[in-house]
Amino acid sequence: MTVYAAFADRLRRGDSTFTAWVGWPEPMVAGALAQAGYDAVTLDMQHGAIDYLGVLRSIPLIMAADRPAVVRIPVGEFATASRLLDAGAAAIIAPMVNSAADARALVAFTKLPPVGQRSWSPYAALPLSGLTAAAYLAGGNALVRVFAMVETREALGALDDILAVDGIDGIFVGPSDLSIALSDGAQVDAEAPAVEEALDHVVARCRAAGKVPGVYAITAQRAKTLAARGFVFIAVGSDGLLLHSAARQAIGILRG
Amino acid sequence: MTVYAAFADRLRRGDSTFTAWVGWPEPMVAGALAQAGYDAVTLDMQHGAIDYLGVLRSIPLIMAADRPAVVRIPVGEFATASRLLDAGAAAIIAPMVNSAADARALVAFTKLPPVGQRSWSPYAALPLSGLTAAAYLAGGNALVRVFAMVETREALGALDDILAVDGIDGIFVGPSDLSIALSDGAQVDAEAPAVEEALDHVVARCRAAGKVPGVYAITAQRAKTLAARGFVFIAVGSDGLLLHSAARQAIGILRG
Amino acid sequence: MTVYAAFADRLRRGDSTFTAWVGWPEPMVAGALAQAGYDAVTLDMQHGAIDYLGVLRSIPLIMAADRPAVVRIPVGEFATASRLLDAGAAAIIAPMVNSAADARALVAFTKLPPVGQRSWSPYAALPLSGLTAAAYLAGGNALVRVFAMVETREALGALDDILAVDGIDGIFVGPSDLSIALSDGAQVDAEAPAVEEALDHVVARCRAAGKVPGVYAITAQRAKTLAARGFVFIAVGSDGLLLHSAARQAIGILRG
Amino acid sequence: MTVYAAFADRLRRGDSTFTAWVGWPEPMVAGALAQAGYDAVTLDMQHGAIDYLGVLRSIPLIMAADRPAVVRIPVGEFATASRLLDAGAAAIIAPMVNSAADARALVAFTKLPPVGQRSWSPYAALPLSGLTAAAYLAGGNALVRVFAMVETREALGALDDILAVDGIDGIFVGPSDLSIALSDGAQVDAEAPAVEEALDHVVARCRAAGKVPGVYAITAQRAKTLAARGFVFIAVGSDGLLLHSAARQAIGILRG
Amino acid sequence: MTVYAAFADRLRRGDSTFTAWVGWPEPMVAGALAQAGYDAVTLDMQHGAIDYLGVLRSIPLIMAADRPAVVRIPVGEFATASRLLDAGAAAIIAPMVNSAADARALVAFTKLPPVGQRSWSPYAALPLSGLTAAAYLAGGNALVRVFAMVETREALGALDDILAVDGIDGIFVGPSDLSIALSDGAQVDAEAPAVEEALDHVVARCRAAGKVPGVYAITAQRAKTLAARGFVFIAVGSDGLLLHSAARQAIGILRG
Amino acid sequence: MTVYAAFADRLRRGDSTFTAWVGWPEPMVAGALAQAGYDAVTLDMQHGAIDYLGVLRSIPLIMAADRPAVVRIPVGEFATASRLLDAGAAAIIAPMVNSAADARALVAFTKLPPVGQRSWSPYAALPLSGLTAAAYLAGGNALVRVFAMVETREALGALDDILAVDGIDGIFVGPSDLSIALSDGAQVDAEAPAVEEALDHVVARCRAAGKVPGVYAITAQRAKTLAARGFVFIAVGSDGLLLHSAARQAIGILRG
Ligand SMILES: [Mg+2]
Ligand SMILES: [Mg+2]
Ligand SMILES: [Mg+2]
Ligand SMILES: [Mg+2]
Ligand SMILES: [Mg+2]
Ligand SMILES: [Mg+2]
Repeated sequence: MTVYAAFADRLRRGDSTFTAWVGWPEPMVAGALAQAGYDAVTLDMQHGAIDYLGVLRSIPLIMAADRPAVVRIPVGEFATASRLLDAGAAAIIAPMVNSAADARALVAFTKLPPVGQRSWSPYAALPLSGLTAAAYLAGGNALVRVFAMVETREALGALDDILAVDGIDGIFVGPSDLSIALSDGAQVDAEAPAVEEALDHVVARCRAAGKVPGVYAITAQRAKTLAARGFVFIAVGSDGLLLHSAARQAIGILRG
Repeated sequence: MTVYAAFADRLRRGDSTFTAWVGWPEPMVAGALAQAGYDAVTLDMQHGAIDYLGVLRSIPLIMAADRPAVVRIPVGEFATASRLLDAGAAAIIAPMVNSAADARALVAFTKLPPVGQRSWSPYAALPLSGLTAAAYLAGGNALVRVFAMVETREALGALDDILAVDGIDGIFVGPSDLSIALSDGAQVDAEAPAVEEALDHVVARCRAAGKVPGVYAITAQRAKTLAARGFVFIAVGSDGLLLHSAARQAIGILRG
Repeated sequence: MTVYAAFADRLRRGDSTFTAWVGWPEPMVAGALAQAGYDAVTLDMQHGAIDYLGVLRSIPLIMAADRPAVVRIPVGEFATASRLLDAGAAAIIAPMVNSAADARALVAFTKLPPVGQRSWSPYAALPLSGLTAAAYLAGGNALVRVFAMVETREALGALDDILAVDGIDGIFVGPSDLSIALSDGAQVDAEAPAVEEALDHVVARCRAAGKVPGVYAITAQRAKTLAARGFVFIAVGSDGLLLHSAARQAIGILRG
Repeated sequence: MTVYAAFADRLRRGDSTFTAWVGWPEPMVAGALAQAGYDAVTLDMQHGAIDYLGVLRSIPLIMAADRPAVVRIPVGEFATASRLLDAGAAAIIAPMVNSAADARALVAFTKLPPVGQRSWSPYAALPLSGLTAAAYLAGGNALVRVFAMVETREALGALDDILAVDGIDGIFVGPSDLSIALSDGAQVDAEAPAVEEALDHVVARCRAAGKVPGVYAITAQRAKTLAARGFVFIAVGSDGLLLHSAARQAIGILRG
Repeated sequence: MTVYAAFADRLRRGDSTFTAWVGWPEPMVAGALAQAGYDAVTLDMQHGAIDYLGVLRSIPLIMAADRPAVVRIPVGEFATASRLLDAGAAAIIAPMVNSAADARALVAFTKLPPVGQRSWSPYAALPLSGLTAAAYLAGGNALVRVFAMVETREALGALDDILAVDGIDGIFVGPSDLSIALSDGAQVDAEAPAVEEALDHVVARCRAAGKVPGVYAITAQRAKTLAARGFVFIAVGSDGLLLHSAARQAIGILRG
Repeated sequence: MTVYAAFADRLRRGDSTFTAWVGWPEPMVAGALAQAGYDAVTLDMQHGAIDYLGVLRSIPLIMAADRPAVVRIPVGEFATASRLLDAGAAAIIAPMVNSAADARALVAFTKLPPVGQRSWSPYAALPLSGLTAAAYLAGGNALVRVFAMVETREALGALDDILAVDGIDGIFVGPSDLSIALSDGAQVDAEAPAVEEALDHVVARCRAAGKVPGVYAITAQRAKTLAARGFVFIAVGSDGLLLHSAARQAIGILRG
């Protein structure tokens, strides 16, 4: 089974799936995290420094470690999602999907007809998937996972509508933005009570819809907690946070 | 006559014009194909790996070989088209133009006032064109060619409306996407009967409108056939396909 | 006081603030101009060759010289504005803002809730600002300056509406595009009488609204004149123009 | 068996081993050729445009296709050879090795003690080899192949001495340079009679010494001939030559 | 006091000075480690993937955090050392300096006349140092620190001769290579008894010569031990090791 | 006549030839200076930030403006000189050539047999020169100019011996280094009396030997003076100096 099929199956089965999170535009970083043992590696174009070419160069290094490459695109840049799927990305996370209309626009760019209108030419994805063109056309939509980010009041309100959009495979919660939204800009706190409540709500609605609940967690401890609460696809920390914490730990010993 | 004027004239005259197709973000590849004898070199940002800076670095190498640089932008990224015209691109191919409204949006970003609202500052195009600012303002729209891609049922239905949009200089058919669309997602076959029929229809309507019919062909043989059927601007293969076929040919000899 | 606060304060006080203008995607150029003595350095993604990563690598070099980094984004690429604010940009200039709706869309991506919906994660801006996350959430909108470009008839007509949008901190006039627009495409002349009139009008309306009038000037002499006429944030020339004029001056001596 | 061991074994067995040849600094080109079916991919830093980082980014893409990455270094840049072995290169080709002293200097940088003095830290080679540090220290020299180029009169005269240097695993003939040398600068002709004679001589002496005879061939046909004459490691053409010939072939059809 | 002077003074005083160690060619990594609290950041061109331009782009980010940038060059590439000092490096570590002759060659490229023959043009170092050209010419040698690596039997035997070379400011021990050398290639063990003995010997001889003893340590714990044993300039781990250990720690929690 | 032949002829005729000087690794800068009107553009790898790939990308932009690209290599990196000649450089400036032996080593890497041992494969130079392989082999040495830098007492003492080396086409004086050398490290002053005297001496000896006297001048005024004193190939300022002076001039007006 290819990396794509294994990843999609794992998410369908509901096994906890932890992804590293990369913001630096250096493919060797993504490659190193892919080899470290995470279930996936996510490249963050929204709040990271990684650019289009950095993502393109990272994907084959992640795939060489038999791990799926996931990409979070910038808000609304759906054409970029299409290009990255061509390049071999196994999943797309789209931030700030606030309505069924947003979700449909996302699907239009990430799923092949007849579900969406993703334009044809999976130039790198095809050889990586091991499929013929015909098989990819028939089965590509089942291999590629599409997550809509829910991180505003509006999105929470439209959650069931978003989940009902054909081609949306899961929800990915951004708890920091959600905390700002739910407090009307008063606080950023990914574990605020209102956020916690929303998190459980998202898990419940995803389950009801047969779709994958996903979330970002700043620490491994928090990620484990969220997995226990039902999240299936869980992002953990980031390259910068990992390096910083390891450096601070080393300096603590040096200065200790 | 500059490369720009020669290219626009050639298309106006209806001489078969064959363009190389580049997906790799290495300017030396584009430069090599420009020197090989094609009539133009197209840089594919939609389904290729080439990024913005790769295009910017390729354009002068193509122009140094007295060939026009054409760019296919990602779906809907019209602001990128403006930037690439500033950098010296001679033509823009915009994918998935499905309506007159799409076509007008494309023109807004690619033609100077009063036709469109392309913002002023042809920083590299001006010296490459050899014109004064005033002459470029007056004549730039005639030098720069804009192709709307027709590759869906919707677009085929709106073909005459798209052709009627002032500032659209030609149609470029994407036969693979069109075959998927016309089969409702059932098959990808650039030579399916329904596609062949559509191709002839596009040529006829372009002629009627006095605009340039263009198309993508995967092989030189197919390109020649399509030229014979009336297409004027014809893309042929890609850098990756050329290298792959040459490598397979060499390996055939080596293993033979 | 940090660079951000000092820049925002200076603009609020109305002190003439002159920014260098960079189009080349080489961070050392931006760094050199930051050290040369300008009040700010603006990186031009609309009509310059600088790309996303070029901007990201330039910002810390500009900040290391205690100067704010400003970015002009391509038309309508508001998601890019969010990403660049995360990376430490002190201000955004958005071209072709033609209506209050355009201005609101710009603010949505550049101001934090409750003013806008800028997504949270100022990964580089936070350490550069010296603030805690809570303080940045509360005060970030006051640090980051957002300029709407007025460079069409439509925009001039909507000027007061644009100025009334909460989160718009200033207007930046593009005199060349404005001259084309006001002449219906007949001429490009940044000092045409109709432009001059519009410039004074913008200064007056900005003052009335308590917002910052900004403008692009091709020479230092023109910049000084515009400052005297009331503009507060004034861009001067560009890296390419500076190098070209210095080279021509040197060659004049050599050939003299 | 890893790629390294399989490559070294294959050369030891004397099976004809054909390598692609890459001059462009774009890793995707090397990756594409690795997938095309060659037995190895060689990155040419001497007469190609590929730089250090281009090589580093190409190696994992070649290895991901289960092919060994070979690097030809610039003349005398032996420290670069060490760095590339750390990065995962499976073999080094060193041009202009004209004496046993040159060969010993090459070995000093490419073989671990006690054979050479290659400095320790195979940071990428270690994980790619699947070995422990101790196993790599003991066995690394047997995995990494080192070719001395013979392409001058002086080198031909010292051939047996060069072959006798412990750590030199093979000879790689540069027929063009050799033809220039043997004609005292009068002609470049890789198939000149004096070159042909020298080629057979090199094969014979390599066999006598139990080392690998290697050679560069400009076409697949020539490569096959040289394999039949006893060469074991044979480089064929280049990325640029492949693309050029495929492009010329396509243009021939288009213009035909 | 500038970063240069502070660093040189600190080493002269003998205060334990811990440097981060960077192998990735992404300046943001070096910048992050500079901000994390190490006393210096060393960029490793010998056994890291960082290239010349990566070093040039990292130096200003390290200096912006008020930390000195140190560079380990590849074996014998002394001309690179000159270029990096021009670019602002505060110190050079040269591997495999095995004799007084090697040390003199190193000094020739890293110290200004009359001590060495470093060529003039500290284009970035001059503004970073805050000195006039005259002051830099007079005082530059005292600001820039040059470390000779001792990591072979031959070098240990020549230790006092190397220390006696005017312009050599310190010794930097490579314990892994030294362990290989002292075991005649039998083992790599940075804490082998023979290495431990050599380490104490180097500290003693450096003290006797009034020069700085330096060493590489793979962990913070080991670094602390070596500081306690008298080493003054101590490198700790690497970016790759930090990220890997932090990732493994996180995964341990996730899988725990 | 090609750029190569025109440049070599011009130097032979003794016409004053002024070259721009580039240190930034951005090809657009070199391209802009090539278009500005200098007789040549020199890329400075010794004291500039430009790297190997930066040079390779700059050369075709310079040639596209019909100007020869000259490269100053780092001290002693003669293999790099060979690679850059392959890539199309029209001339090499080698710093710190202190003896006839140094000069012969330089020639060995920059002139084809029988004069030197430059290895064959002018992959980009051949098409740029418009010659066949045979013609390039016969005439390439006459097209490519090689300058030995004289900038130490030792070099001055060996001047006639260096000039006598077949394949050395000219001398290039580095006045700053020479001033340091002639003052035994006491001062850097490119116009010190001892330097002035040496400059006239170099011109005289070059003339006597029928070779080209070259020199670096920091300003256009100084360049003109040195041309009047007999120098034929004169470098003027640098990209950084040009930009800085233009920026300071602009700021002078703004603050005036
Ligand atoms: Mg978010
Ligand atoms: Mg299509
Ligand atoms: Mg404008
Ligand atoms: Mg050769
Ligand atoms: Mg070592
Ligand atoms: Mg010098």
